[in-house]
Amino acid sequence: MNIDGVPHRSVWVDAEDGWSVHIFDQTRLPWAVEILRLTHEDEVAHAIRSMQVRGAPLIGAVAAYGLALALRRDASDAALESVAAMLGETRPTAINLRWALARMLEALRPVAPAARVAAAYAAADAIAEDDVATCRAIGQHGLPLIQAIAARKPGKPVNILTHCNTGWIATVDYGTALSVIYQAHDAGIPVHVWVDETRPRNQGSNLTAWELGKHGVPHTVIADNAGGHLMQHGEVDIVLVGTDRVTRNGDVANKIGTYLKALAAHDNKVPFWVALPHSTLDMSVRDGLREIPIEERAAEEVLTVTGRTEAGEVVTVRTAAPGSPGANPAFDVTPARLVTGLITERGRCEASEAGLLRLYPEFVAEPEFVEEAAN
Amino acid sequence: MNIDGVPHRSVWVDAEDGWSVHIFDQTRLPWAVEILRLTHEDEVAHAIRSMQVRGAPLIGAVAAYGLALALRRDASDAALESVAAMLGETRPTAINLRWALARMLEALRPVAPAARVAAAYAAADAIAEDDVATCRAIGQHGLPLIQAIAARKPGKPVNILTHCNTGWIATVDYGTALSVIYQAHDAGIPVHVWVDETRPRNQGSNLTAWELGKHGVPHTVIADNAGGHLMQHGEVDIVLVGTDRVTRNGDVANKIGTYLKALAAHDNKVPFWVALPHSTLDMSVRDGLREIPIEERAAEEVLTVTGRTEAGEVVTVRTAAPGSPGANPAFDVTPARLVTGLITERGRCEASEAGLLRLYPEFVAEPEFVEEAAN
Repeated sequence: MNIDGVPHRSVWVDAEDGWSVHIFDQTRLPWAVEILRLTHEDEVAHAIRSMQVRGAPLIGAVAAYGLALALRRDASDAALESVAAMLGETRPTAINLRWALARMLEALRPVAPAARVAAAYAAADAIAEDDVATCRAIGQHGLPLIQAIAARKPGKPVNILTHCNTGWIATVDYGTALSVIYQAHDAGIPVHVWVDETRPRNQGSNLTAWELGKHGVPHTVIADNAGGHLMQHGEVDIVLVGTDRVTRNGDVANKIGTYLKALAAHDNKVPFWVALPHSTLDMSVRDGLREIPIEERAAEEVLTVTGRTEAGEVVTVRTAAPGSPGANPAFDVTPARLVTGLITERGRCEASEAGLLRLYPEFVAEPEFVEEAAN
Repeated sequence: MNIDGVPHRSVWVDAEDGWSVHIFDQTRLPWAVEILRLTHEDEVAHAIRSMQVRGAPLIGAVAAYGLALALRRDASDAALESVAAMLGETRPTAINLRWALARMLEALRPVAPAARVAAAYAAADAIAEDDVATCRAIGQHGLPLIQAIAARKPGKPVNILTHCNTGWIATVDYGTALSVIYQAHDAGIPVHVWVDETRPRNQGSNLTAWELGKHGVPHTVIADNAGGHLMQHGEVDIVLVGTDRVTRNGDVANKIGTYLKALAAHDNKVPFWVALPHSTLDMSVRDGLREIPIEERAAEEVLTVTGRTEAGEVVTVRTAAPGSPGANPAFDVTPARLVTGLITERGRCEASEAGLLRLYPEFVAEPEFVEEAAN
């Protein structure tokens, strides 16, 4: 997607040297747009660990390039295995990270060391391109939903509410839920996005607002508290969110607060759609509320906020009363009964086992447990 | 209620000089506990305008004392009328402010100027004492709800979720919803309060957490997004909130985000109770969603946060992406169907016209329009 009119991806190989890898330092967004040049697998590991890159699909692609960087200096079997293992440990719950590294190992083990560097870049490029194609397809399958609303209110913008960040900087390009929005906007449909702030980490006001602004998509930041009121007054035509895990029954784990928006959407007959790539499906689990473990993150995230002072300094301030403790469940589960439908790279379906199996017949047999994706 | 074991009210006359008025500078809370001494009606007007005092009941009482301060220098009829008019303009929507000043004028107009100062302090004291009695009674009528839950889970704390600030610093003492909690705590019932941060102005993490901490009530600050998840997992026994206006039908206007918590409470069969003094009833309005105007406040409140740096400096930082606009509806309306019941100084009732008329038979005839209370 664009930054001030110039197309970007969230990870790319240097066009001049042909081997070094570029990313945005997402810990600096939205205050500074800083591009980092990675030349060593240790820099890649640090980028993942410190969340300079975040979002499960992006982490997987960056790790794949990290392996390619390492092989440039040592393409031996031993190096291949040890660097893949090292990169696989950089984030604990990112399923895409280990999926991408496994795909790299599978591609590179049969290749002679002398040919491994070229093969590694090709395999990493393929992972990145696959992600782009998946996200583009999600957007295309969601687009008719926006078109149908636009057709009912000619000349007026389609008001879309979203939560957290599901954009191109969480993937390689396009994003998941935001892919739908970008494609609608780029197709000339007037859209306006209500961006939930998404406390406590403010991915909405920091990342989603930044992305949308840079691509030129009209949007408004709101407190997480405001969405219900907007729906009561007809100000939201559709809710589009991403997800960290979808169960066989269609239950949806996503950023904390998603469930509250789903309840409000249901109460006000606003369609509530969830966008996801197939890699987010966990067909080994049925009851999301009982079976999906919810990460409890540091209370400090709730008790503090990071922002920029008038003088331009980025600081973290304590917002809660001194001495008061906090609690920070990072995700919640929206029961399938509140989900209008799912948007995947293969099409749209009902949030149910029958709906999912229609798109993914290969999952008729229940697979083994799949770990939670990182966000 | 207590600050570190010492009982306090939010406004009081100096015990030594017998005439100057003390308040807490609430714009400094929770970072500093600063007591201001007011000696002139202009200081009182400034305190109300700048929100050094806030909360409709407290504003009314402080304005009443402001009139008494003015009369010490000039107790003429002209001064009485002009100062009352000046104080009445300090906040646009605080119904209690004008109610308190009208009560003062009614009491003081018949009194000879020479006797007016004593009469004014007596009338202001009566307004403050009435508010304390009202809030104490609200707490007493809510207490059985907490006792009943405590009886069902012996040895375990009653988990109460609250939103915004409804505590003693918003009234003269006790508060409304927090009055119930304070009285349960003081009665030895183990309680634990989930304190919604209450973005965008953070009245929960700033004021409610501060109050509860100073009085020694166990509590935990959470993101506004977290309450639904906690209810899904049985971590909330009851929701207790205040309100800015209750309609004849039992619809409840309150701080933005209250409606989302009511939906989650309903979905998880968690009782949702609303505490209010009779002055918050607006029997001239029926349909809260259609008839209650919702204040749209400055977007800056959503785009920024105020907090304290590690160095101890209190600063306002921008948290939203530069250039992104914000929207800030300050209240929402929870339909009566989602409200388990109302707690008033006269007892508890169903959130309905029948319920309200049982407690307030004097409202059988519909009164004229009543303006919105400030919060």
